[in-house]
Amino acid sequence: LKGLVLKVGKFLQKAYDVGANDPRKAVHGLKVGMALTVVSLFYYMRPLYEGVGGNAMWAIMTVVVVFENTVGATISKSLNRVFGTCLAALLAFSVHWVACKAGEKFEPWIVGASVFLLASATTFSRFIPSVKQLFDYGAMIFILTFSLVAFSGYRVDELFELAHQRLATIIIGTSLCILVSMLIWPIWAGQELFALINGNMDKLANSLEGYVAEYFNPDDSNKNLLAYKCILNSKASEESMANFARWEPAHGCFSFKHPWKQYPKIGAAMRSCAYCIEALGSCIDSENQAPEFIKKHLSTACLRVSSTSSSVIRELAEIIKSMKRSSNVDFFIEEMNIAVEELQEALKSLSKLPNPPESKNTETAASVAIETVPLVEVMPAVTFASLMIEISARIKGIV
Amino acid sequence: LKGLVLKVGKFLQKAYDVGANDPRKAVHGLKVGMALTVVSLFYYMRPLYEGVGGNAMWAIMTVVVVFENTVGATISKSLNRVFGTCLAALLAFSVHWVACKAGEKFEPWIVGASVFLLASATTFSRFIPSVKQLFDYGAMIFILTFSLVAFSGYRVDELFELAHQRLATIIIGTSLCILVSMLIWPIWAGQELFALINGNMDKLANSLEGYVAEYFNPDDSNKNLLAYKCILNSKASEESMANFARWEPAHGCFSFKHPWKQYPKIGAAMRSCAYCIEALGSCIDSENQAPEFIKKHLSTACLRVSSTSSSVIRELAEIIKSMKRSSNVDFFIEEMNIAVEELQEALKSLSKLPNPPESKNTETAASVAIETVPLVEVMPAVTFASLMIEISARIKGIV
Repeated sequence: LKGLVLKVGKFLQKAYDVGANDPRKAVHGLKVGMALTVVSLFYYMRPLYEGVGGNAMWAIMTVVVVFENTVGATISKSLNRVFGTCLAALLAFSVHWVACKAGEKFEPWIVGASVFLLASATTFSRFIPSVKQLFDYGAMIFILTFSLVAFSGYRVDELFELAHQRLATIIIGTSLCILVSMLIWPIWAGQELFALINGNMDKLANSLEGYVAEYFNPDDSNKNLLAYKCILNSKASEESMANFARWEPAHGCFSFKHPWKQYPKIGAAMRSCAYCIEALGSCIDSENQAPEFIKKHLSTACLRVSSTSSSVIRELAEIIKSMKRSSNVDFFIEEMNIAVEELQEALKSLSKLPNPPESKNTETAASVAIETVPLVEVMPAVTFASLMIEISARIKGIV
Repeated sequence: LKGLVLKVGKFLQKAYDVGANDPRKAVHGLKVGMALTVVSLFYYMRPLYEGVGGNAMWAIMTVVVVFENTVGATISKSLNRVFGTCLAALLAFSVHWVACKAGEKFEPWIVGASVFLLASATTFSRFIPSVKQLFDYGAMIFILTFSLVAFSGYRVDELFELAHQRLATIIIGTSLCILVSMLIWPIWAGQELFALINGNMDKLANSLEGYVAEYFNPDDSNKNLLAYKCILNSKASEESMANFARWEPAHGCFSFKHPWKQYPKIGAAMRSCAYCIEALGSCIDSENQAPEFIKKHLSTACLRVSSTSSSVIRELAEIIKSMKRSSNVDFFIEEMNIAVEELQEALKSLSKLPNPPESKNTETAASVAIETVPLVEVMPAVTFASLMIEISARIKGIV
C-alpha cells in the first residue's frame, strides 16, 4: 500500500511539473472542459435538442476528437472532418442509389463490395506521404462515414434527413472548437515553431561558444553546454508544426502566406551544425589531450572563430525575429571568415613552434586534430549562414 | 486540364511506389476492408442486429478507428478503448446516481461540473509523458464515453441496457480487429523493430567502411555511403515500435517478456556513432585535403580500424539475431583495440616522416586532423560495443 501511495505521489509530482513548466497545457485542459460543457448546452436546451436530435452526440464526439493543443492542428482536423464527412456522404448516397436501382437481391453485394474497395484504397492511401501529411485524419473519417452511411442506408429511410443533421452537429462542434481555441488564450503552431527555431539558434550559439570555452578553460563550467542536444531530435516536431502552421489565419506578425516551409529547412541546417558540435564534444571528453603550449597557441584563434560564428548565428536569429534583412549579417560573416583565416594561419605557424622538451609527438598530432575540429565545424556553419541569408531574403520578399 | 492529369498520374505513380516498396501496406488496406465487411455481417444478419441494436455503428466505428498497421498498435488501441470505455461508464453511472439523489434542480449542475472537471484533468494528463506513452488513446475515449453517458443519462432511462450493448459492440469490434491483424499476414511491431535495428547496424557498418575506403581510394564509388543518414532520424519510430511491441503476445522467436526496452537504447548508441560518421563525411568533402604521402602512411592503419570496428558491429548484429552471447565479440573487440593502437603508432611515427619538398605544413596539420577523426570515431564505437555486450548479456539472461 505504501508503495502505491508513493507511486501516486510521484505521478502527481510529475503532473505538477508538466503544468508548472508550461501552464498553457493546463489551460488547454480547461479549454477542452469548457468547450465540452458549452456543447452540453445544445443538449439541455430543448429547441436545439429537437433540432439536432439524438445526433447531438456527434457534436460532443467532434469536440473531444478534434480539439487539439494548437490552433493550426484544430483547424486542420476540423476541416478534415467536415470535408471527409461530406465527400463520404455524397459517395455513399450515390452508391446507395445505384444499389437501389439494382434491386434488393444485389443491394448487399454492391454496398459490401463498395465499402471493401473504398476502405482498402483509402487505408492504403494513408501510407502515401503527401496524403498522410495533410489528410490522414480526413481519410479515416471518410472511411468511417462512408461505411456508416452505406450500411445504415440499408435500414434507415430518412437518409437525407439523418445526413443533414449529422453534418449540422459536426459543423457546430468544429466551429465551437475553432472559436474556443482561437479566442481563449490561443496557442498558434506558427508562433510555437517560430519560438522553437529561435530558441534552438540561441542554444546552438551558446553550445558552440560554451564548448570551445570549456576546452580552453575547463574551470568555467557552463550549464548551457548540452543545450544543443535537443536540436538533434527536433525534426519531427518542427515538421508537424510547420504543417499545422499552414492552416492558420494571419496572427501576430505572421501573414497568412508566411513561408512556413522554410522553417524546417533552417531546422535541418541547424541540425547539421549540431552534429558537428556533438563531434566537438567527444574531442573534449577524449583521453588524448593536447599539451598546454599548443592549446595556448591556438586558443585565441579558436575562441575568435567560435565567438564570430555564434554572433553570426545570433544575428540570423535576430533577422528571423524582425523578419528584415539586415546588412549586419554580411559584416559578421566577413568577420567570421577573417577569424577562420586567422585560425588557419595559427595552424600553419604551429609546425614552426619549438618542440616541447618531452617530444610528445603523438599528443601533438592528436591535439592538432582536436584543435582543427572547430575548422571542420565552421564549414557547415558557413553553409548554414549562406542558406540562412537566402531564407531571410525570401522572408523579406514575402513579408 | 493537362496539368491535372499529370498530377493525378504522378500521384498514382507515387502510390504504386509505396505499394511496391512494401506490399504489406497494400495488404493492410485489404485487411481493413475485410474487417469492415465482416462487421457489416453483424448488421445484415437479423438476429445479431436485434441483439446489438442501432449500436451496431459502434462496432463499425471501432474497426475503423482501432485497426492499425502492426499487431501491437492494434492490441494497445483495443485495450485502451475497452478499458477507457468501462472506466468512464462506471464513473458516469456513479455521477448520475449522485445527481439523481440530489434532485432535479441540481442534476444539470452536477453533471456539467463533473464533465468539466474530468475532461480538463484527463486532457491535461495526456501531456504527462508516461500517460501519453501508454494511455493517450484511452484517455480520449474516457472523456468521450464519460460525457456521452453523463449527458445521455439525463435523457435515456435504459442507461444500463445501452451501456451493456455498446460495450458488447465495442468488444466485438476490437476482438475482430485483433484476430484479423494477428491471423492474416500479421505485421508484428517487435519483428519490425528487430529488423530495423539489425538493418541499421548493417548500414552503420557499411557506411563506416565505405567512408574510410572512399577517403583513401576515391575511385571506388560506393552507394551505401549515405545509408547511415536514416539512423539519424529513426528515434521516434524506434520508440513507438518498442512501445507497441510490449503489448504483443509471444511470436516467432520472441517471448512475451522480451526486453523490448533495450532496443531503443541500442538505437541511441547507434545514433551517437552515426553522428561521428557524419563528421567523418564532412572531412571527406573538406577542401583541405591531405597530401598523398600522408594518406598513404595512414591508410593501412585506418582501414584496419574501420574494418575491425565494422566487424564488431556486424558481430553484435549477429548476436542480436541469434540472441546468444558469442565469444567472438570479445575476439573482434580485442582486434579492434589492436588496430586502434596501430593507428596511434602510425600517428606517432608521422612526425618522423621527412617533410615533403613543398613544405605544405598547413595541409599536413589539416590532414593529420582529418586522419585522426577515425580515432575520435572509434571511441563511441567502443562505448557502443561495451553497451551492446551488456545488452546481449541481458538478452541472454532473459531469453
